[in-house]
Amino acid sequence: MTVPAGLSAFPLTPLRDDALDEGAFIGLVRRLAAHAVDSITVLGSTGSYAYLTAAERSRAAHLAVEAAGEVPVIVGVGALRTSQVLAHIADAEAAGARGVLLAPMTYQPLGDDEILDLFRAAVESSPLPVILYDNPRTTHVTFTRDLYARIAELPGIASIKIPGVPADPAEAAAHVAAIRSVIPAHVSIGVSGDASGAAGLIAGCDVWYSVIAGTLPRPALEITRAAQQGRDDRASELSARLEPLWQLFAQHGGSLRVVAAIAEQRGLAGPDCLPLPVHGLAAADRARVAEVLAQLGLDR
Amino acid sequence: MTVPAGLSAFPLTPLRDDALDEGAFIGLVRRLAAHAVDSITVLGSTGSYAYLTAAERSRAAHLAVEAAGEVPVIVGVGALRTSQVLAHIADAEAAGARGVLLAPMTYQPLGDDEILDLFRAAVESSPLPVILYDNPRTTHVTFTRDLYARIAELPGIASIKIPGVPADPAEAAAHVAAIRSVIPAHVSIGVSGDASGAAGLIAGCDVWYSVIAGTLPRPALEITRAAQQGRDDRASELSARLEPLWQLFAQHGGSLRVVAAIAEQRGLAGPDCLPLPVHGLAAADRARVAEVLAQLGLDR
Repeated sequence: MTVPAGLSAFPLTPLRDDALDEGAFIGLVRRLAAHAVDSITVLGSTGSYAYLTAAERSRAAHLAVEAAGEVPVIVGVGALRTSQVLAHIADAEAAGARGVLLAPMTYQPLGDDEILDLFRAAVESSPLPVILYDNPRTTHVTFTRDLYARIAELPGIASIKIPGVPADPAEAAAHVAAIRSVIPAHVSIGVSGDASGAAGLIAGCDVWYSVIAGTLPRPALEITRAAQQGRDDRASELSARLEPLWQLFAQHGGSLRVVAAIAEQRGLAGPDCLPLPVHGLAAADRARVAEVLAQLGLDR
Repeated sequence: MTVPAGLSAFPLTPLRDDALDEGAFIGLVRRLAAHAVDSITVLGSTGSYAYLTAAERSRAAHLAVEAAGEVPVIVGVGALRTSQVLAHIADAEAAGARGVLLAPMTYQPLGDDEILDLFRAAVESSPLPVILYDNPRTTHVTFTRDLYARIAELPGIASIKIPGVPADPAEAAAHVAAIRSVIPAHVSIGVSGDASGAAGLIAGCDVWYSVIAGTLPRPALEITRAAQQGRDDRASELSARLEPLWQLFAQHGGSLRVVAAIAEQRGLAGPDCLPLPVHGLAAADRARVAEVLAQLGLDR
């Protein structure tokens, strides 16, 4: 299998009293399935994989596959130790995942050969397609194009999840083309960084690995479908409409705390659904989130 | 209890076939106790705490306390999730630890209030003294002096483990004095970054939290005792003699891979004792380590 093109939605993994809030999590996944997103990636950074135990992760993977119905589920399997990554992959496979997402988490900084070996161990351990997850903000790994190429040629690598693309459309297209030129044709490229979603798809990415889609799938689907239909101006316009949201993401050092606040406001998660020590937004910031949602007609 | 002044030695936690190598670990700790270092900190960054399971960490803490005899054992308790930190503290307490070392590990970047709350939860959970562990290279947290002050005033904080001090002695002394001026008198300051050990003690640090002491305690003890006796020139000279070692640390992005190679060469750990994906040094680099050890008379 290759990773489905289009929109991959990344739900939160809400906690309640420091335990998996199964009802909320199932609700989020069912909601995504009902909106017919192209795939659901659970236990991404938005899904707090790095904070959860192996047992919690295995349980979440099983719940997600059951709740997703026909929609393929991809499971995040990153961990600091290679043997833990392999255990998470085995658990994801047992749960019925259709692919795994692997970020090279670091504590000790890793060199390229160490990262390559981690991905080699991953693809050799399981027939599941592996998505290379490049998230420098959380892993502190800087992927070069050369390292993309070395990993992408491993059999079993299905896709690369890249950070946001340059704002200039020509530069963005050149950026995606340059990556494409060094990786096998069967390896897809997916953009992340939601503010870059439309720009990435327009620039030639196959997939949008989307945080906002995990909580508010409708606007992300509209952008994705417009881009897939070649209606680039429409996709850009829909994304530009969401600019106040992208600004909130930037202001709060990423999307996680903002989407958690959205999910809590919409009743999709209970209060304080993030894993401590990560705090949710302060009251004033939550009020601003509510204001932006109302402004955009996304408050119900 | 306050953290013993002087030399705190940080042993490796050697693995064999991806499991705790109990014999090698006990041997390392016994060796440190026999050398009468002032304290032994297990499960520091050098002890690979971030890569080990709760069960492995608890087992290592128990083994260390037993093997250390009269020498106090401090246990590293860092983790990404607050509840995991608290569980590690409880396990360290059950093992008989005399203090805990806490680095604010991050996946999602944390703000100062989040870090403060983590330390507050730690000190409130246990009577054990807590050492604030500032290791920006691995945690990607930048501690300001203000944040040191806010955490150090929490009852239960015993010490701050700071990164290396400036090379210039006057600057180093001013740096340590500036930290001392914002923290309570009972909170000690310990230097890390082994190349800075002598300079830190001379600049007024109470403790040297030392990686090299975990594997080669003798030269680290000589430096520490000279500094404690006010023989600053002698301490500096002894540290300068080890310059080829400090250069190897710098060249290999930190001390871990080099001390692992030393331990493996000296028979204190089996081959490939680090947790994958972290690789040991390549053969040529190991040969250079052996050469430096022989040059320094530290090869036996």
